[in-house]
Amino acid sequence: MGGSSFGQMFKISTWGESHGYGLGVIVDGCPAGVELSEEDIQVYLDRRKPGQSKFTTKRGESDTVKIMSGVFEGKTTGTPIAMMIVNEDQRSKDYGDIASYYRPGHADFTFDEKFGFRDYRGGGRSSGRETAARVAAGAVAAKVLKELGVEVAAYTSSIGNICIDENKIDMSVRDTNALYMPDNEAFKKAEAYLDELMKDCDSAGGTVSCVVKGVPAGIGEPVFEKLDAKLSQAIFSIGAVKAVEIGAGVNAAELKGSEDNDSFMYEDGKLKLTSNNGGGMLGGISDGGDICLKATFKATPSIAKEQETVNKSGENITISIKGRHDPVIVPRAVVVVEAMTAITVLDLMLLNMSSRMDRIKEFYKK
Amino acid sequence: MGGSSFGQMFKISTWGESHGYGLGVIVDGCPAGVELSEEDIQVYLDRRKPGQSKFTTKRGESDTVKIMSGVFEGKTTGTPIAMMIVNEDQRSKDYGDIASYYRPGHADFTFDEKFGFRDYRGGGRSSGRETAARVAAGAVAAKVLKELGVEVAAYTSSIGNICIDENKIDMSVRDTNALYMPDNEAFKKAEAYLDELMKDCDSAGGTVSCVVKGVPAGIGEPVFEKLDAKLSQAIFSIGAVKAVEIGAGVNAAELKGSEDNDSFMYEDGKLKLTSNNGGGMLGGISDGGDICLKATFKATPSIAKEQETVNKSGENITISIKGRHDPVIVPRAVVVVEAMTAITVLDLMLLNMSSRMDRIKEFYKK
Amino acid sequence: MGGSSFGQMFKISTWGESHGYGLGVIVDGCPAGVELSEEDIQVYLDRRKPGQSKFTTKRGESDTVKIMSGVFEGKTTGTPIAMMIVNEDQRSKDYGDIASYYRPGHADFTFDEKFGFRDYRGGGRSSGRETAARVAAGAVAAKVLKELGVEVAAYTSSIGNICIDENKIDMSVRDTNALYMPDNEAFKKAEAYLDELMKDCDSAGGTVSCVVKGVPAGIGEPVFEKLDAKLSQAIFSIGAVKAVEIGAGVNAAELKGSEDNDSFMYEDGKLKLTSNNGGGMLGGISDGGDICLKATFKATPSIAKEQETVNKSGENITISIKGRHDPVIVPRAVVVVEAMTAITVLDLMLLNMSSRMDRIKEFYKK
Amino acid sequence: MGGSSFGQMFKISTWGESHGYGLGVIVDGCPAGVELSEEDIQVYLDRRKPGQSKFTTKRGESDTVKIMSGVFEGKTTGTPIAMMIVNEDQRSKDYGDIASYYRPGHADFTFDEKFGFRDYRGGGRSSGRETAARVAAGAVAAKVLKELGVEVAAYTSSIGNICIDENKIDMSVRDTNALYMPDNEAFKKAEAYLDELMKDCDSAGGTVSCVVKGVPAGIGEPVFEKLDAKLSQAIFSIGAVKAVEIGAGVNAAELKGSEDNDSFMYEDGKLKLTSNNGGGMLGGISDGGDICLKATFKATPSIAKEQETVNKSGENITISIKGRHDPVIVPRAVVVVEAMTAITVLDLMLLNMSSRMDRIKEFYKK
Repeated sequence: MGGSSFGQMFKISTWGESHGYGLGVIVDGCPAGVELSEEDIQVYLDRRKPGQSKFTTKRGESDTVKIMSGVFEGKTTGTPIAMMIVNEDQRSKDYGDIASYYRPGHADFTFDEKFGFRDYRGGGRSSGRETAARVAAGAVAAKVLKELGVEVAAYTSSIGNICIDENKIDMSVRDTNALYMPDNEAFKKAEAYLDELMKDCDSAGGTVSCVVKGVPAGIGEPVFEKLDAKLSQAIFSIGAVKAVEIGAGVNAAELKGSEDNDSFMYEDGKLKLTSNNGGGMLGGISDGGDICLKATFKATPSIAKEQETVNKSGENITISIKGRHDPVIVPRAVVVVEAMTAITVLDLMLLNMSSRMDRIKEFYKK
Repeated sequence: MGGSSFGQMFKISTWGESHGYGLGVIVDGCPAGVELSEEDIQVYLDRRKPGQSKFTTKRGESDTVKIMSGVFEGKTTGTPIAMMIVNEDQRSKDYGDIASYYRPGHADFTFDEKFGFRDYRGGGRSSGRETAARVAAGAVAAKVLKELGVEVAAYTSSIGNICIDENKIDMSVRDTNALYMPDNEAFKKAEAYLDELMKDCDSAGGTVSCVVKGVPAGIGEPVFEKLDAKLSQAIFSIGAVKAVEIGAGVNAAELKGSEDNDSFMYEDGKLKLTSNNGGGMLGGISDGGDICLKATFKATPSIAKEQETVNKSGENITISIKGRHDPVIVPRAVVVVEAMTAITVLDLMLLNMSSRMDRIKEFYKK
Repeated sequence: MGGSSFGQMFKISTWGESHGYGLGVIVDGCPAGVELSEEDIQVYLDRRKPGQSKFTTKRGESDTVKIMSGVFEGKTTGTPIAMMIVNEDQRSKDYGDIASYYRPGHADFTFDEKFGFRDYRGGGRSSGRETAARVAAGAVAAKVLKELGVEVAAYTSSIGNICIDENKIDMSVRDTNALYMPDNEAFKKAEAYLDELMKDCDSAGGTVSCVVKGVPAGIGEPVFEKLDAKLSQAIFSIGAVKAVEIGAGVNAAELKGSEDNDSFMYEDGKLKLTSNNGGGMLGGISDGGDICLKATFKATPSIAKEQETVNKSGENITISIKGRHDPVIVPRAVVVVEAMTAITVLDLMLLNMSSRMDRIKEFYKK
Repeated sequence: MGGSSFGQMFKISTWGESHGYGLGVIVDGCPAGVELSEEDIQVYLDRRKPGQSKFTTKRGESDTVKIMSGVFEGKTTGTPIAMMIVNEDQRSKDYGDIASYYRPGHADFTFDEKFGFRDYRGGGRSSGRETAARVAAGAVAAKVLKELGVEVAAYTSSIGNICIDENKIDMSVRDTNALYMPDNEAFKKAEAYLDELMKDCDSAGGTVSCVVKGVPAGIGEPVFEKLDAKLSQAIFSIGAVKAVEIGAGVNAAELKGSEDNDSFMYEDGKLKLTSNNGGGMLGGISDGGDICLKATFKATPSIAKEQETVNKSGENITISIKGRHDPVIVPRAVVVVEAMTAITVLDLMLLNMSSRMDRIKEFYKK
């Protein structure tokens, strides 16, 4: 079945490998009439691009996007938007050796089991580089959402055990540091922690939080296509994610009903919730408040530190993975979380348009 | 679009409301030739049935399942299996008052926003009772999986802040206590905690863990239909879930690469992993080890304790929710987690059958 | 995978067998707020019901529908509408003998090959009786369409080689004759033809035409989800259909471009097409004119006349099929064609709502 | 929603416009381990390529395909196969004038209505050139099918009212004439007919037939995903198709049951059907015989002959369409029908793998 498509109304289908010709995506179902240029996409890709700081791989990729279809005279036509990023620095030879053994924490073994063999060059399709295509699609979704008054913003909320202070978040700071943390004090501590890890040839994990503002109440379909259910699929589909939390998240287990319930209240004639343990949704449907989610990323599995594994000749061996790897993938994952969140929210907003007969009648009266 | 279907090969579509005629499900895509009886299903439904202990609602439902199609001479025919559970104790009048206000923590408000009005009788479609239909479908999936050597087992891993001791899990104990905890010491503490909460008209949350044994390596599709991505959608689609974790889960954020990576090793000529931080998968594809997930459930939102909310006349009011509510939904959710996990794993196992050309050729040679 | 679901926004999933407990359907994605009663459905089912004339089986079924969910206080709630028709006259014993051989023209052999065995009672799931569930779903679609100003009407256009006069169609006459022909002269000839066939223990085929009025221009998605492509899937999914034609249909092969092209023209300031060889669509998207399709049905395969076939012991045998069979299925198929057409058109109208950015912005401004 | 994807297991998603950057397709779900090269694809594209004879447009396109992903070391990897054909001879300026009016028989008007504007360069996405991407995908499907012993072959069965003699089909002749007719006598008559039409600035329609050999019995899912239903969607999704017939097709309306039913018979111990009015299927499931379908194509709508239409200023005008148009699209559509048929059959063969429990158990025992 493949599994490389996501979304029902705003549907993305991705292709490409880390060290093949390039990466790409088809966005099918983008509404017609949206102003869209390659610059709109490039801004997002640049946030994911390698080589931005000492904490990212030195692979030299400009990640320049080309729009190949679906845009005419500066506007989307309603037909598929195909976008492509050609690989520029694929040193496949660097990866020849990993063909013979299974890297711990990577999908080498499972791809071999599933498909009988694998594209071993840098992980092929299972590489983090695959997410570039999603980011391109997410940039389109974000552009559409902006026109609907919806803003999606993610940030690094922790690296290892160093967490930002949730009460001191300053989003203006996020893009000024290499870790995309909206808290410069936390950034400094995280930087020191990573410097030490790098000396030790090790790597770190962390968390990414994402907030969506401006989503109207009523988004998400009951039962299996709930807003939280689709968001969690979207986020877990990003490699290295080990947990997804909505609102109070894992803390909800310890809260009593009287503590966890968000109260409704009219203030100046407007209905609002007095807290947000629900994360902007109730019963999997948006309640008009901020949508809040958090994703946990494991540490980069490729480390130069020695590890035990096996080779395909059936031997237990010790390896040290050389090459160009990020000591922490969290900062580059920030924009990927933003992208997948935008795609999911937009898809559900489009799906929601047929929920009420009165609105459909009004729509077709025109 | 509705959102009441899940799965691609083994597809379930559910219907029904808490206080309507009943609940049901169509299982489409169940392979032909599986021995299946109503007893097979009833065993699962009985684990979810209300009225089993002091910790569950007193609503009197036998939850008797009827198979209406898809089984002939004791075997599945390959065509849709329709199952139904008729409601027996729907006291709709009890719920008349909740039509006028929004219960905190419930989907009353969001359903009204989405659909323009709602079936207010006990939450209608957003009720936890909706999960009965999933459990019926999950029982079918579990039956099929068992024939393939796959066993799915969930249990309560915490209530409030009382956690079981993961090193002392005794699954034989799970079904002997009212909270489905595989650790009797933890159960006693949890029982005392709940007794106190109930006196205080409050409610508790907790966690459910689930382990799947016997899944071959290679299950899960790359990118968007990964095993973890589909499992998380499945689990988050259950009401009240606020977090899903796979393997090391939220703890992965703090582990270094050298700590988190599970090493491969040949032991007696067999390949195995020496630890399971990955939760039985790598790159979203099963690695042959035990699949491990954990779901966090928030506290039951319906509490007798006073709460602030609003009514539909635009007033801020104080309410106390009477009626038949579980002080904690976790124990009854255990079998729901098991059901959704079974459905997801089976669906991906069937999807996986076309991953390799050599196997397809062999299949069609017969 | 099953194959018992159709539609993306307005999605139907059917279940049931000819001689099992009954037949049913879940309609998921019906907009909320549509007034709907069992009577609305029953009117459609009564048109398909057996025993209405000498040309239909004598099986005694009232085909009474029960709405089990999704309607509250007389209106659809936006959640799944489950409907059921319990079988009343299933004389399974009549069918015991057909378990041992393959009826020519039936799916006995192919079900056995696909599933390893089959529910042989009256064809099980492959019976024409399966269409009752579709008609129930189609009645819901027709109700919604009516509120949007869209009317779907099918009729018998030929029986054997007796065709109605397309220039003398009188729809007021359609429901007054047993063959649902909108031309009483043709009806009389067809009646005489069928009387003769019945004496000869043989059966007839024919065609059903369907016209949809009031569909706005712009419905249908480019490339694979075109209006004609989805309509043809919908119609071909009805048993016994051997051809689907749109507009000029098979005659288009012989028309020159200058003959086939429908000219555009402004008349009294309104844009119209001067002919309708396109059948109400261009490039698979509705053009605002009447949508016209025609389906060819083969003759009822169950005939008392002797036929050659094989039994499961590997012998060539001669059979004569007794039992309650329609000598022509076309008249009862009329409402089935109407139902499938309504479902398809509504589904594509709902899908179309997200085609333009300006309309989406207006929608969400409310 | 877009509508540019087709298939469930073997899923294709296409992009591109007639006069944009190019055209492409992602094939997701192709099994791993199939030997595949650009030459395999090119052979199919060359059959559709323009400029092959006096009956096809003079547009100069080499239609060279590039495989961008999913193939490694000469074999498919199981991940998406992205293919692209860059446009070489897009003279957009030729089409500037058609922006201002609606061409009869084209999708100009309906695209404008649906999307608010359109890519008017040569029809944009509604151009027949869009089918190049399908042919590339179909070549992959055909390669896989060949390994499974399945052969798909289409041919021109009529041009205008000149039909081939079905009893004298000689497939070795098909590729030797410009119209892909497997009957040279018919070809000569058709050639003469077309020469005359071209002088008259007019165009012709015709039919394409397709035969699939080697499909095992049991392919196709009951009810909505029947083999005939999916084939008809696939074929009707090709522009200009106005009818699809299976087996006896429209002639089935006039056959009696005793004439239409194909008898079963054991011959030399093998079960066979003595005729093929069913077109290789019963109840929408393959019966092991040859699958036979026929598609009717309307005449090319772009003709130099004068036609009445309207412009966007609201005036009735007379036009004569200049430019590079095929006087008949049937010969170039032959390989497109073959491609869509191959994709559909393969998709359903992969879906069918999970129909029986005994086969699934055997599959997973390995």
